[in-house]
Amino acid sequence: MAKFEILNTDSDSAARRAVLTTAHGKVETPVFCPVGTAGAVKGTTPQQLKETGSALILANTYHLMLRPGIETVEELGGLHKFMAWDRAILTDSGGYQIFSLNQLTKTDDDGVEFTSHIDGAKIQLNAEIATNIQNRLGADIIMCFDECTPFPCSGSQLKKAVERTIRWAGRCKQTHTNSSQMLFAIVQGGIDLPLRTHCASELVKLDFDGYAIGGLSVGEGHDNMIKTVNSTTKFLPQDKPRYLMGVGTPADIIAAVKAGVDMFDCVLPTRNGRNGFAFTENGPLRLRNNAHIDDTAPVEAGCDCYCCKNFCRGTLRHFFKTKEYLGPILVSLHNLRFYQRLMTKIRRAIEKNEFADWAAEQLKTGS
Amino acid sequence: MAKFEILNTDSDSAARRAVLTTAHGKVETPVFCPVGTAGAVKGTTPQQLKETGSALILANTYHLMLRPGIETVEELGGLHKFMAWDRAILTDSGGYQIFSLNQLTKTDDDGVEFTSHIDGAKIQLNAEIATNIQNRLGADIIMCFDECTPFPCSGSQLKKAVERTIRWAGRCKQTHTNSSQMLFAIVQGGIDLPLRTHCASELVKLDFDGYAIGGLSVGEGHDNMIKTVNSTTKFLPQDKPRYLMGVGTPADIIAAVKAGVDMFDCVLPTRNGRNGFAFTENGPLRLRNNAHIDDTAPVEAGCDCYCCKNFCRGTLRHFFKTKEYLGPILVSLHNLRFYQRLMTKIRRAIEKNEFADWAAEQLKTGS
Repeated sequence: MAKFEILNTDSDSAARRAVLTTAHGKVETPVFCPVGTAGAVKGTTPQQLKETGSALILANTYHLMLRPGIETVEELGGLHKFMAWDRAILTDSGGYQIFSLNQLTKTDDDGVEFTSHIDGAKIQLNAEIATNIQNRLGADIIMCFDECTPFPCSGSQLKKAVERTIRWAGRCKQTHTNSSQMLFAIVQGGIDLPLRTHCASELVKLDFDGYAIGGLSVGEGHDNMIKTVNSTTKFLPQDKPRYLMGVGTPADIIAAVKAGVDMFDCVLPTRNGRNGFAFTENGPLRLRNNAHIDDTAPVEAGCDCYCCKNFCRGTLRHFFKTKEYLGPILVSLHNLRFYQRLMTKIRRAIEKNEFADWAAEQLKTGS
Repeated sequence: MAKFEILNTDSDSAARRAVLTTAHGKVETPVFCPVGTAGAVKGTTPQQLKETGSALILANTYHLMLRPGIETVEELGGLHKFMAWDRAILTDSGGYQIFSLNQLTKTDDDGVEFTSHIDGAKIQLNAEIATNIQNRLGADIIMCFDECTPFPCSGSQLKKAVERTIRWAGRCKQTHTNSSQMLFAIVQGGIDLPLRTHCASELVKLDFDGYAIGGLSVGEGHDNMIKTVNSTTKFLPQDKPRYLMGVGTPADIIAAVKAGVDMFDCVLPTRNGRNGFAFTENGPLRLRNNAHIDDTAPVEAGCDCYCCKNFCRGTLRHFFKTKEYLGPILVSLHNLRFYQRLMTKIRRAIEKNEFADWAAEQLKTGS
């Protein structure tokens, strides 16, 4: 059984419609994964998350490693049982958080040593440890340990990080033992296209279950990001899933699907939801605005989410003004459903071989 | 059609099993009402609240009056639509909050003037205004405006408050126009039994749809409270519902049902839930405790709530330690279900005419 089966390709773009078969169900791609940082997609129950149409969610190895700790997750029955999520889960390698959140005390060809932002403990992480930890957590898709560079970044630092990322990916593959988990490699290289090409080509030689594009959406801007994605996907195999990490806005996702990307994760729907910022087809809605005081309309007319079917903007505004947590919960649910509806529209457009036109229309109206 | 139909009475106590018919469905009594202070039972969606078995919830007139304001609730379609709750709602009169939360700038026989704790605005409230506001909100059960006294309280202050409460109840009844709403009077009098008797007797002469016992659970202690309830219910008509406001612990509720009380409301299940404190048949559980780090048991074995069916104590402890809001949500849901299961057991025991024995057993094991 093919783990990744392409059902349709768009004749006017690189977009593909596929099914990824995991140990916890089939995932229709292009797919959007809500982020369950420390074991929960903030403020939502797994039941509510299922109702938004989510088939695959992300959990952060770094956060779980620090709290409650890998051994505890194992003792509690592994990640699926711990999170009460019986659909597919993807864990990242921890690289991104280590390079962005921490005081790195040592980085060398072996790996990194960092100081925990929780309790100051010194922790070592490298290819072998990151893979072993993810094997123990038991997600359906796990990621290679990579070196993430900031933006902007000097050419020599970028090159060094890419070489390490390639070598570490080889070590991750050597270490990976659990065949029920797919191991994805991560292409690095900033917005340096030849470096991205080199990184992609070397990783492809090692033959992974899928390929992620990391190190983007860190300040380079939409156009640089899409140019890099477009260039990189050309060097990735057609028959393996492609995952653009930490992306993005609806416009980012549509443009990246056009470039041949299959998977996305982002905190935007829940982070914005917590702040009273709702996504709609007609653009963003700030629910704290006075304009919504006596607004009896739902967040988005025609939306089938729990929030839109039951609550009006006036009530939501009141919840945000009075700090009732039901406001963040409801708008997070709406935003997650908005993203899942967007992915459904993307998949339908590819199935009908109308994606390029549909995408052009969407990007024009500024979704 | 009788609005309050008694189905069974316990032969060894004053406990009754009845059905209260409201404009938004039948309420099986004895009933526990979760508290939706400002239009939401904190952290729970109406759907989740229904799944706990809640048939009647309380909303606070005082909080809604200040934010978003009565006119706004009306513009948004009335309280049921505003809260997205299609079952029964009860609103209090605002008296309790005004006397406990605010800088009272004037109290006289007409009513009170107070300074809003939100924006410092001067607001007047009296029997007519409180009734009119509750008529406009549109709850199924509304309460008379009463004067709440602190505990302890001088005999003369208590007596004055009781006389005012009686006079204000008469004015509320005169003002009340919406026959689809039941109007309940509130018996005051602290723990002064003759004063309680006087207040109850005078209110009964005015003939209300139900009678509440207010001004308890304010520091007088379980025994004083139950003694007062026992004494007061004797002077209330058999054929009208009796409501003990703001009460309480499982033990308080069982003892008050024994004294003939039909209705309860309390923030304990949600407030304790938010703090990681779970109710169980075997006593309270503090989920933050280190003992639960690798605890794979549910909060309460055999509980049919969403939390217990899906999450173990170890995960819940992790959510509280990492400030994931899913922890408060899940434990609030468990506690609300715990209270509803308690009420079901109370109703079954009365139906079987075994309530007195069952209650004695429960109170012995310290529930």
